[in-house]
This record gives sequence, structure tokens and C-alpha cells, in this order.
Amino acid sequence: MVNVLGLDIGGANTKVAYIRTLEGVIGSVEVFVEYFPVWKNFKGLVGVLGKLREFVGGDFDVVGVTMTAELSDVYRTKREGVEHILGCVFEVFGGVPVFVLRSDVSLVSLEEALVSPLGVASANWVATGWLVGQYFEDCIVIDVGSTSTSIIPVVKGKVVAQGVTDLDKLLYGELVYTGCLRTNLAAIVQAVPIRGAVAGVSSELFALSGDVHLVLGNITGEQYTCETADGKGVMRSDALTRLARLVCADTEMLTEDELIQVAKYVYEKQIQQIFSGLSKVYNRVKDMGVTKISILTAGLGKDFLAKVAAERLGTDSILIMDLGKLLPDKVSLAVPAVGVALMAAKHCEVIEK
Amino acid sequence: MVNVLGLDIGGANTKVAYIRTLEGVIGSVEVFVEYFPVWKNFKGLVGVLGKLREFVGGDFDVVGVTMTAELSDVYRTKREGVEHILGCVFEVFGGVPVFVLRSDVSLVSLEEALVSPLGVASANWVATGWLVGQYFEDCIVIDVGSTSTSIIPVVKGKVVAQGVTDLDKLLYGELVYTGCLRTNLAAIVQAVPIRGAVAGVSSELFALSGDVHLVLGNITGEQYTCETADGKGVMRSDALTRLARLVCADTEMLTEDELIQVAKYVYEKQIQQIFSGLSKVYNRVKDMGVTKISILTAGLGKDFLAKVAAERLGTDSILIMDLGKLLPDKVSLAVPAVGVALMAAKHCEVIEK
Repeated sequence: MVNVLGLDIGGANTKVAYIRTLEGVIGSVEVFVEYFPVWKNFKGLVGVLGKLREFVGGDFDVVGVTMTAELSDVYRTKREGVEHILGCVFEVFGGVPVFVLRSDVSLVSLEEALVSPLGVASANWVATGWLVGQYFEDCIVIDVGSTSTSIIPVVKGKVVAQGVTDLDKLLYGELVYTGCLRTNLAAIVQAVPIRGAVAGVSSELFALSGDVHLVLGNITGEQYTCETADGKGVMRSDALTRLARLVCADTEMLTEDELIQVAKYVYEKQIQQIFSGLSKVYNRVKDMGVTKISILTAGLGKDFLAKVAAERLGTDSILIMDLGKLLPDKVSLAVPAVGVALMAAKHCEVIEK
Repeated sequence: MVNVLGLDIGGANTKVAYIRTLEGVIGSVEVFVEYFPVWKNFKGLVGVLGKLREFVGGDFDVVGVTMTAELSDVYRTKREGVEHILGCVFEVFGGVPVFVLRSDVSLVSLEEALVSPLGVASANWVATGWLVGQYFEDCIVIDVGSTSTSIIPVVKGKVVAQGVTDLDKLLYGELVYTGCLRTNLAAIVQAVPIRGAVAGVSSELFALSGDVHLVLGNITGEQYTCETADGKGVMRSDALTRLARLVCADTEMLTEDELIQVAKYVYEKQIQQIFSGLSKVYNRVKDMGVTKISILTAGLGKDFLAKVAAERLGTDSILIMDLGKLLPDKVSLAVPAVGVALMAAKHCEVIEK
């Protein structure tokens, strides 16, 4: 029996999975999530990790770590970010063995991670891909989060992403910076159809993708968990007000129908953005000789973005499934944290043997 | 002799022009600018106006007002914004006659303005067009500010804009939401060329147009007067760091040459955005039978954005001039404030006669 902590330290949320495993099989899982926007107060990270350690309560033999918070603009470079974040991890968890996930799907010690910090930057998608690879042979995971979308190819149970860094992944379609809550609409569309013509949009932060999906009924107010653009509420009328501002208008100047047309247009653009990345990844996987591919959807946008984009692949040889329904309970709340915990558990067992 | 105050109440800056005129001709001009981001503390507007009134010191017979601050997202609708802003103006300047500029190029009393608040919303470009029309018969003004660009056609000395509201102007190319300092790069480009391929960009607020123009030498650090995306400095190295983050990279992963290529690409996109609006306006003016058109450039981006876009009209029949060099000293610092002041002065003289 190995008790493991998995840490996924993101820019806005720090997630911990506490799992008990026997020979690499998950016994029990507990997940804790702490909202902590690192760009607002990066010095508080040690405190947050300490608090999460207390939450967990039980003993653990090993810690697995992955992160994306190093991209936050409080850090001048990723190196600076990785060094600070791993320093905090060491301060809180230094008493037990700590393993850090590299984007080449290996685990290294804290000391080794600090030798080449870029290798462990933004690697949490690897943990997702690895975990899925434990259950599925050939698949593509489409994880549509609040701000961005990860598209992760797995072949013969192994992560076969072409990109290692976020930059690579942006080039190869494996990272698409569109999401279902926090994306600035001005970054999705440069113009929208209004009254038979095309209006350029304001480049301010006036409305977010959460407004589009709230107006279209894709999400509820409770699911709109991020801060809104104007700091106001998450009623449908609030979202319509923000949508109107995208073209410097208000709800006296534009009707609800006109605003719904704008929302539909932005929604369609998001599907296209995700499809564009997905089709690149899909064709690469096909070129590897895979004939039957499962598409696993994850994240808040799994149904109205990931699934819809996947359906556009338009082939009978793919099967679209909801990842959350295939994995053990609670896991879908923090897939990378669980993944890196299980990797660390297996790593320990291998070392012990 | 009429002494007039002109107020241009913007979302980020409140500008006052104090002018003394005789029969519509400007005698002396003083300009005061107060940085006041209305979205951070709209209740402070009365205090700011009071402070500016004290700055001015001298007596005045009449006040002319125009605004754009009503678009700020602290206000639910433009109506709510206009009502609040004019209420503040009344509180501070209610003792003298106040005239408010409408976007149909007329002046109305505070009471009349409140009857149809949308008519006075975001009308400050009208003051610019009207002022220019006092000096030039047929011209197009391209005013490239920190965040957006106004393209204002003047024929036979009259403003002939097709759009009245910001929404109309976005439809007709008379308002282009791209500027030389504060524009989020993610709203200008959705992908950039990197190492022979195309990388999607992050939709976060990682870098601003000011970073592009600082890196390319179009502006100096002193001219980079808005807050930066990461709250850090305005050295060239700071700007390169922010530019790298646009594609989730840093200055260890991308060379300076690669980042300059990205900057040049964004710069070219901005020129295209402005040209796209300008060509619509230009062709409409040509269709009105005007054969010789002057293009007057204004704002911080007058040389490297407005002028470059105008040159792409590629015709001998246009003359490109710097508006600031043609108007009296200091006026170019606050053209709409001076314009609305002079309009109010003339309006008074007409009434007195």
C-alpha cells in the first residue's frame, strides 16, 4: 500500500489529490481544490500548500508534483517561476520524497527538476494523458477548461504529443487558447454580424466566453465560477449587458435576439478553433497507423465544445465518450493531480522492487 | 470676448480646455488633463471636476461638454452613464450655462441632453471633426489614440460621418478598436509566425500594443504612459518578456530576432486594421464627388500607424498632414475639449446676437 499526494499547481487553482494505491491500482481518492491566483500574491504559495497539507490530514509516503503556474506574469521567465514554485514545495513537503513530472513523461527528483526547469514547466497535461493511457489504448483527450483547451493524443497507451512546451503545442494544435468561461471575446472574434453588416469589436475586456455560454444556456450561473468582466453578476441579463458592450452598445440599443446572434457567432468560432487543433492532432494519429480512435471529452466544456468539435471529424471510426464517466468517482475533478499521484506511486513501487 | 471651458470626460482621462475667444477665433488656450479611470471609482468624478475647476482658476461664461466615459462598464447602460456624468457636471458647473455636444453636431442644454442621453454618448470625435472643419474643406482625420482609432470624414467643412453611435461607427469603419498603447495583442492577432510555422496566441492579457511599438522603436519608454500588462517596467527588455508570453514562451525560449518578427507581424496587422476602416471612409468621401482629399493624422500613433495606413491609399490626389502642426499650440493635446469649447463659444455669440 502506498499513500500519495498529487499536486497540480495552476495559475488560478492549486489542486491536491490524496490517493491510496496498491500495486498501481487506485484504492481511494480524495481531492482538494484551493482557489489561489498566483499572479496576485505569489508569496502566499507556501501558505496555501501548508493549508492543503493540513486539509489532507493523513500520512503519505511520496509526493508527485506538476504545475502550470510558472507561466504567470509575476515571474519574468518560466525558470524563475519553476524555481520559486519548487522552492515552496520543498519548504512544505521536503520531509518526504518529492517527484516532479517532466513533459517527456518521466518523473525526476526536485534537485534534477531544478537542473532543467523548462522540462517541468506546464507539464500537467502529461499527467492527464498518462492516466488516460492506463485505461485506453488509442485515443485523443479534448479537455476544455475555463480558459484553454488541451488536445492530448495517446497511442498504444502512451502519450504521443508532438509538442513538449506550450509554445510547441500552440504550433501543433495541441493547445488552443479558447475556453468556456474566462476567454476574452475580443480574442475569439475580431468582428461580429450585426443587422446585416459586420461590426469590428472593442478590444477591451468587456465580455468573456462565460457570457456567451450563459446566454445560450450551455452553462448555469453556478457554473460561471470566474470573476466577470465588469465585476457584476451572473444572471442572464448581466451577461447580455456585457455582450452588448463587445460592440460598444448596450441593451437599449440591441435586442436580445440580436445579442443571441452575436453569442451564436462567437460560439461557432470557438468550435472552429478547437476543431482546427483537433483535426491536426487527429490526422497525425491516423498517420501513425491507428484506425479506431476514441475521443475522450473532459472539462466544463466537454459537451458543448469538445463533443461538438469532435463530431465534425465526421467519421464512423471514432467513438466519442465522456472521460468523467469512465474514470473512478472524484477523479475527473482533478485529473492531472490524480495522474501525477498515481505516477509517483508506481515510480515508488518500481524503486522499492 | 467669451471665456469658455471645454470638458472631454473620457473613461481614463478627463480633459479641460480653457479658451478665450473673440468672435469664434481662439485667443489663448490652456489645457489640463487629469488621469481618472472612471471604472475604478466613478463616485470620484465630482471631485475630479471640482479639482479641474480650481486648476483653471479664471472666470468663464459658458461650459461645453463631451464624453466617452459612459461606455465604461461601471454603468449598466449608456443612459445610466450619461445621467451620472451630466449630474456631476451640473453639481460642479451648474452656476453657468452648460452645453452638451450631440453626435448630430448640435449643442443642447443639460436638460435637453438628459431627454435623449444616447444622443450625447461618445460624441467627442464630433468636436474633433467640427474643429478641423473650421480650417479644412475636405479631409479625413485619422486619430490613433492609446486604445482606439477614430476616422472622421469632413466635406465642405462639415462632419459627414455615416455613423452616429459607436456601434454604427464600428460597422462603417469610422471606429477601429486598435491603438498604439493599450490594445491587448490577443485582440489584434489570433496567431503569429514562429520558426516557419504558425502559433496560436494566448488569449490572456499578456502583452499590449505599447510593447510592440516600444520593441520596434516607434515609441519611447516615456511615451508608454499606460499600465503594462504585468505591472512591470517599460524597458525594452520588459516589453520583450511580455511579447514572448503572447505565445506562452519566455526570453530564454525565443530570441530577440524571433520576438521582433512577432512584433512586426502585429504592427502590420494594426496597419491593415486601420487601412480597412480608412478605405471604407475614403471611398464614401470620393463617392460624394470630392476629388482632392487631405488626410490629417493625429494622436500618439499619427506617424507610425495613421500615416503609414494613409499612404496605402496610394493616390496622388491625397495630401497627408500632421494635424498637430496645423492647429494652434497646445490644442493637439486635447482636440475634442478645445473643439467643444469653441463650439460653445460660437453658440453663445449666436444666442447673444
